[in-house]
Amino acid sequence: MTILPATFDAKLFRENSETVLAKLEKHLADQSLRGLELSDPARLIAAARALMTEEREKIADFDEEKLAAIVDLYLATGIQVHSPSYMGRQFSGVVPLAGVIDFVSSVVNQPSSFYEAGQLPNAVERIMADELNSFIGWPAGSFAMVTTSGGSLANLTALLAARNRAFPDYWSHGGAALAGGARPAIAVGADVHYSVSRAAGVMGIGEEQIVRLPLDRDYRIDPAQARSALDRAARTGLRVFCLVASAGTTSVGAFDPIGELADLAHERDCWLHVDGAHGASLLVSDELRGALRGIAEADSLTWDAHKMMFVPAPCTLLFYRNREHSLAAFRQQASYVFDEEPDIYAALDSGGKNFECTKRPMIMTLWALWAIYGRALFAEKIEYLCGLTRDAYEILEATPDFETVHRPEANILCFRHRPAGLSEEAVHRFQVAVRSRVKHQGKFFISKVDVDGVAALRVVMMNHETTTAHFRLLLTEIRKAGRELLHAGAASR
Amino acid sequence: MTILPATFDAKLFRENSETVLAKLEKHLADQSLRGLELSDPARLIAAARALMTEEREKIADFDEEKLAAIVDLYLATGIQVHSPSYMGRQFSGVVPLAGVIDFVSSVVNQPSSFYEAGQLPNAVERIMADELNSFIGWPAGSFAMVTTSGGSLANLTALLAARNRAFPDYWSHGGAALAGGARPAIAVGADVHYSVSRAAGVMGIGEEQIVRLPLDRDYRIDPAQARSALDRAARTGLRVFCLVASAGTTSVGAFDPIGELADLAHERDCWLHVDGAHGASLLVSDELRGALRGIAEADSLTWDAHKMMFVPAPCTLLFYRNREHSLAAFRQQASYVFDEEPDIYAALDSGGKNFECTKRPMIMTLWALWAIYGRALFAEKIEYLCGLTRDAYEILEATPDFETVHRPEANILCFRHRPAGLSEEAVHRFQVAVRSRVKHQGKFFISKVDVDGVAALRVVMMNHETTTAHFRLLLTEIRKAGRELLHAGAASR
Repeated sequence: MTILPATFDAKLFRENSETVLAKLEKHLADQSLRGLELSDPARLIAAARALMTEEREKIADFDEEKLAAIVDLYLATGIQVHSPSYMGRQFSGVVPLAGVIDFVSSVVNQPSSFYEAGQLPNAVERIMADELNSFIGWPAGSFAMVTTSGGSLANLTALLAARNRAFPDYWSHGGAALAGGARPAIAVGADVHYSVSRAAGVMGIGEEQIVRLPLDRDYRIDPAQARSALDRAARTGLRVFCLVASAGTTSVGAFDPIGELADLAHERDCWLHVDGAHGASLLVSDELRGALRGIAEADSLTWDAHKMMFVPAPCTLLFYRNREHSLAAFRQQASYVFDEEPDIYAALDSGGKNFECTKRPMIMTLWALWAIYGRALFAEKIEYLCGLTRDAYEILEATPDFETVHRPEANILCFRHRPAGLSEEAVHRFQVAVRSRVKHQGKFFISKVDVDGVAALRVVMMNHETTTAHFRLLLTEIRKAGRELLHAGAASR
Repeated sequence: MTILPATFDAKLFRENSETVLAKLEKHLADQSLRGLELSDPARLIAAARALMTEEREKIADFDEEKLAAIVDLYLATGIQVHSPSYMGRQFSGVVPLAGVIDFVSSVVNQPSSFYEAGQLPNAVERIMADELNSFIGWPAGSFAMVTTSGGSLANLTALLAARNRAFPDYWSHGGAALAGGARPAIAVGADVHYSVSRAAGVMGIGEEQIVRLPLDRDYRIDPAQARSALDRAARTGLRVFCLVASAGTTSVGAFDPIGELADLAHERDCWLHVDGAHGASLLVSDELRGALRGIAEADSLTWDAHKMMFVPAPCTLLFYRNREHSLAAFRQQASYVFDEEPDIYAALDSGGKNFECTKRPMIMTLWALWAIYGRALFAEKIEYLCGLTRDAYEILEATPDFETVHRPEANILCFRHRPAGLSEEAVHRFQVAVRSRVKHQGKFFISKVDVDGVAALRVVMMNHETTTAHFRLLLTEIRKAGRELLHAGAASR
């Protein structure tokens, strides 16, 4: 062997870490207003290639400058999530301590689907399940929580459990065996995340068996209209086995009325899954918890800690009201009755409950923050962000050249810029053009979404350093972009 | 707001990192022989709870000692993957530099399913796809690679693409629509990873529609017997749309004959997926690449870089021979023909090709190692580990009280301890008891697997600091455990 052992040297590791650490410290300390520097992919690929060793035969000597250049390029080309002008998406600038804990996870590499392989991660999953359930309210020992790699996967896992509960033979016999009877179907709000309808395609239910429930004026599922829609679905031969509500839709952050939908689901012998990927974190705030009223009646809940719990992605929690259902996703519903009694170690294994065989010990970041700083860290930050969003809404309401499209329930706010002289037909394309221009100017990062078929600008408040002053600056930037577009005649193109 | 901004302070981040870094350096420098300290979960939960703040109302002040205690507990209770006596599982002690790069990913939190959100990760995915394809051999531009969170998910993704290609209506109409025709089925080696048969349950194919192909004496799929098995399946009304081969089975690390199976799959108009989660890494070695002869004929390949490329988990690569098939997993096969022309940025998005909406930029660790050290880092380490495993096999062959159960093709070796006086019927339980005793003694970490229905001891060589001297020490430890068990009469229980 040549220099292979040297690449594992602990001192070199220390030096590499110090190099990177200095850069990360500077990056975190930079509170300047900056958005995204969008690079041409071909040029970025060339820049990255230029940093690669040309040595093909033996292990190249460690090159400190290469490492520094790689990290510089990585930091410079990313969305600047720790900048106060980052208001663009649902991922956040993490609490730095969470990054530090995740560093430990990266080095010690303990996969956590099995207790033996990651003891502490599996132990603290139990602790966090109990801590967070204190805001849901299920009896101790009756419920279950499992971590998984992202909200899309959690939604799919819950839907599998619902499918297998309603159709116990589906796991072994497959969908073809059901032919002739009612077709399995899933009911969702018209604004549900794409991962849910995708799950229907994945699971063999078929995307056409998605029943879309109408929304009310606040973009929430309307229970009365939902009842009629379910009746219609039944008449066309669909058996809706699961109803999916959103606690914080992606587009406007609307919260479906969980309690009323739970009644409806119960009445129809239907599983209620709540996709709270974005909004479940409001549960930790006494002030905001009401948005999820009725959550204890849901059968399952997706909760992304990498959104409003401010830890590195992915860190998704999937809760089941009924502990036994957590075993239903990956087997025939009946079979777990015959399980042998697991030993005290295997009882904490999650491999039978989540997709991953090798799973990152993602809970460690959330638990460490919770252990050291306590619940208030999350509650305070979330309350600030939701308050800021309400303030931004009020500012827009008082500003004639902007229109709001909804009253914000959390930290997501959609609106449109409508300067004088903008024709009605041009509104859609104008918002798209404004967003694109603001993005390319690189000072603010915001997003865009269609609401009622017309484009709107969208901010997601994720940084507690962002203030109403920053929001007013953003409006100035938007106005400037709008003026330039109007002058250039772009709005009428 | 109270001390919330202080929790994001860059200086505090630096201090926290230094605390952790000193511990990690010491941890990596420790080359002592140590296995796993298995803790009672209830006691570990209590120990973790004792480290948590009791402050409920406001954000607790940062407590350096708590952080130190948390990291100490984390390090002490994990599998000691960097110890030379760790020979137990398929996850590895990572190259420390990969941990450092992953630290950056944890702090900057750039999700990588969309180019806009993680430019460099998406750019270097293209680079790594080309670099690694140079060992597979597909024409430039004709194939695709996507990263995803673990081998199980990659297998499922590939099987979805195969299903949607064979049954273009499955995505929209679901499985029930196929009733009456041939039932979709998947053929697998009898020793395939559990994620593959699980995928049949997930996808609505049904676990009963798994056709198990017989293995030869070397635990590889036997092409002649496979042909007969497929004929029998067809006669019972099954339409096998996908054949799954393993490049490194979990139990013994056997490599199925990919070239011959590709011929068989081609003849039957069937997709060939290769689960190379463990063994695909052998491709980077000129000496070992032959184990995957024929890989260019496969339709898809799962490759876990978090196994034998020594980066933090998860980092899984999923390759498709036909670039267009990478779009088939999550939609009707035909629909992508009608896609609008994507812009230069969207062309690098992977959200339509992988399960994750928010995806960790997992490629960064692999690329950084490849960029700085080059291919030889991986090739040398893998060659050493496979050579060590062959040496261990030779040692066992020359040792009368041990029996080998297969000739190792990679770095996995299964064997049995058969001391004089051990009855034939007791062999199975004796291996289980020996493994358990060795594990509890805490000096070596090895695993256990059933081969031909009888338990065997299993080592997976993952650490280049492990030598034949360590393996001989392990045999001594096993013999000692065996003697104690025989004296205690455990073998006859």
